[in-house]
Amino acid sequence: MKLRVDTDNLRDALNKILTVIDKKNSRPILTYTLLTVSNEKIYLSATDLEVSAKYSINASTEGSASFCINAKNLFDILKELPNTDINMELEEGENLLKINCEDIHYSLLIYESDEFPNLHFGNENTFNLNSDDLLNLITKTSYAISNDETRLHFNGIYFQEVEGKLRAVSTDGHRLSLIEHDIAEQNNEALINGIIIPKKGVSELRKVAETYPGANLFISVDDSYLYVTANEQYQLGIRLIAREYPKYQAVIPAKTTYSLTADKETLQHAIRRIKIMSNEKSNAVKIKLTENHMTISANHPSLGDAKETIAVDYNGKELEIGFNARFLLDSIAILNSENITFEFNNEFSAVIVRSNDIQNYLGIIMPLRI
Amino acid sequence: MKLRVDTDNLRDALNKILTVIDKKNSRPILTYTLLTVSNEKIYLSATDLEVSAKYSINASTEGSASFCINAKNLFDILKELPNTDINMELEEGENLLKINCEDIHYSLLIYESDEFPNLHFGNENTFNLNSDDLLNLITKTSYAISNDETRLHFNGIYFQEVEGKLRAVSTDGHRLSLIEHDIAEQNNEALINGIIIPKKGVSELRKVAETYPGANLFISVDDSYLYVTANEQYQLGIRLIAREYPKYQAVIPAKTTYSLTADKETLQHAIRRIKIMSNEKSNAVKIKLTENHMTISANHPSLGDAKETIAVDYNGKELEIGFNARFLLDSIAILNSENITFEFNNEFSAVIVRSNDIQNYLGIIMPLRI
Repeated sequence: MKLRVDTDNLRDALNKILTVIDKKNSRPILTYTLLTVSNEKIYLSATDLEVSAKYSINASTEGSASFCINAKNLFDILKELPNTDINMELEEGENLLKINCEDIHYSLLIYESDEFPNLHFGNENTFNLNSDDLLNLITKTSYAISNDETRLHFNGIYFQEVEGKLRAVSTDGHRLSLIEHDIAEQNNEALINGIIIPKKGVSELRKVAETYPGANLFISVDDSYLYVTANEQYQLGIRLIAREYPKYQAVIPAKTTYSLTADKETLQHAIRRIKIMSNEKSNAVKIKLTENHMTISANHPSLGDAKETIAVDYNGKELEIGFNARFLLDSIAILNSENITFEFNNEFSAVIVRSNDIQNYLGIIMPLRI
Repeated sequence: MKLRVDTDNLRDALNKILTVIDKKNSRPILTYTLLTVSNEKIYLSATDLEVSAKYSINASTEGSASFCINAKNLFDILKELPNTDINMELEEGENLLKINCEDIHYSLLIYESDEFPNLHFGNENTFNLNSDDLLNLITKTSYAISNDETRLHFNGIYFQEVEGKLRAVSTDGHRLSLIEHDIAEQNNEALINGIIIPKKGVSELRKVAETYPGANLFISVDDSYLYVTANEQYQLGIRLIAREYPKYQAVIPAKTTYSLTADKETLQHAIRRIKIMSNEKSNAVKIKLTENHMTISANHPSLGDAKETIAVDYNGKELEIGFNARFLLDSIAILNSENITFEFNNEFSAVIVRSNDIQNYLGIIMPLRI
């Protein structure tokens, strides 16, 4: 087999699949990447058995071959090569891939492709989704995914079809994030039942969506996997979290008594300033509300205390609510909007964080006892 | 005590002394910074008992005070405050420093200044040095300082007055870096005997030199310490390494038989490319010299091998020399010059790495056995 390929293209392709590889994997073959060369194409595949990725690029090829290679090493080499074409050559029966670029010569050890798992990409329960919409669903929810491995059902984003809309939900038990988008094709059985996409799968999905802005993604779901195909070039297979998602609806207040609106930047800066003097573990800050004023305060046993008052729109009753400042900042950060609205009933129950400009989004934060 | 100070100035001052503080220090008071306020000045001091720094800025002050404060916490606060003036206030006998900036209020716990070590800055064996020259001495030698704590004498830069010049030397036993600068004031007794400035002291010295480009630094040396004063604002005290510096002169070849000149960038890129396929521990690459050609090669048991040939100026005998690729790259990186020259006698003895454009510098690399 011989091929000629643009260095930049191959480097970019490796960069796509490198994050899928789990370097600590107990099966050595999974630390490698499968390269398949045939008919003017190079296909690169990687998997950790939870997430699989396959990406293809064009090349001038002669003959065909399929072998496993250390993708990180090849990527390191491509980073240092001049931005021209490179030639690759593999003699039948040989275990050295020759790479030539001007006066630079590499011989890379390769491994048999037989050991590499057979990657399958399904096509049941299909639907189409715009990559920008997917990116927005992910961006607005991924921050609230829990890393607590003892609560597996919280370790991903829940996607569900609800009343003809695609809803994404994430929660770690202390806060929740929910966003909906219209979808063209409705009544997708798998989505009506709901699926949980794990954190690593979410970050690979984000990569696909970012690679093709405004493009149509072809998605398919079966009992255990979600599959995505983009631009006939980039494919993902993601093993879903096989758990029931918690009954999150119960946390969302059906109605709220009080509402407060604040300037996003002012609020963000004030919380950041007061957080410095909060306990490093709880990040607890106290928010005191009086007519059109919010006073944020914190105290730390060995540092001291802090207090800042900002103007807000509020004419409900005077009260004090405790919050994890990090949760507040996370919720506020994802809202690209001038104003932030808090809606709540009292100092003990769930607080809704939203923006009037972003009607399809809802954040929930549970108050801290203070 | 009351004061008013520009937020930016105070933040900048804290940034200068923060790196001196050793957060893991067993004496809690050393994790704090001493702030002394009097006569329109704030003095900030920090020490880990090896390196001490003192920095002053202007402020509007009323009364005076001296207390210890958590500098990292104060720095975090200043980073988040608007870029205006802040007011500080400390009531006599109180242990809370009040900071007010618009509607933002902090009360920071402070500690008695009595416990803080008395910092002394000496003035024996004085001389003046231009900050640009000091920076150049440090930049060209600091890369070869050894981190091996069992060989304390290698853990710093050796400064010595030799034939009316100030010489800086660093070595880790495998390589050496030497640079000289003219000095106006000669026959400084401390420098004739030579001093070893430890790595942390070197990085603080670099900070002082970078703060005042082209400025005169006032330096003093006593039996155990080096002191620097810059711009009547920034002072350092650095405890010297109390060891004899090794007889490094023996390593420098008195004369060399062969000489090779290569384009810096070409050489750098080629070594970087071949290093990828070298052993991760030894970084061993092989350099083969033939008439006007250098072939760099490496091989790795589980990755494969690599080879690149570049054009060089060479008409000595054909030979092969082994090198640690990282040492080659370090030596080449600090030479801001178009060409690099290697001078040597054979494949086993010290190789000089230098540039004709930088006459006052000399690098030495010991070859690897291959």
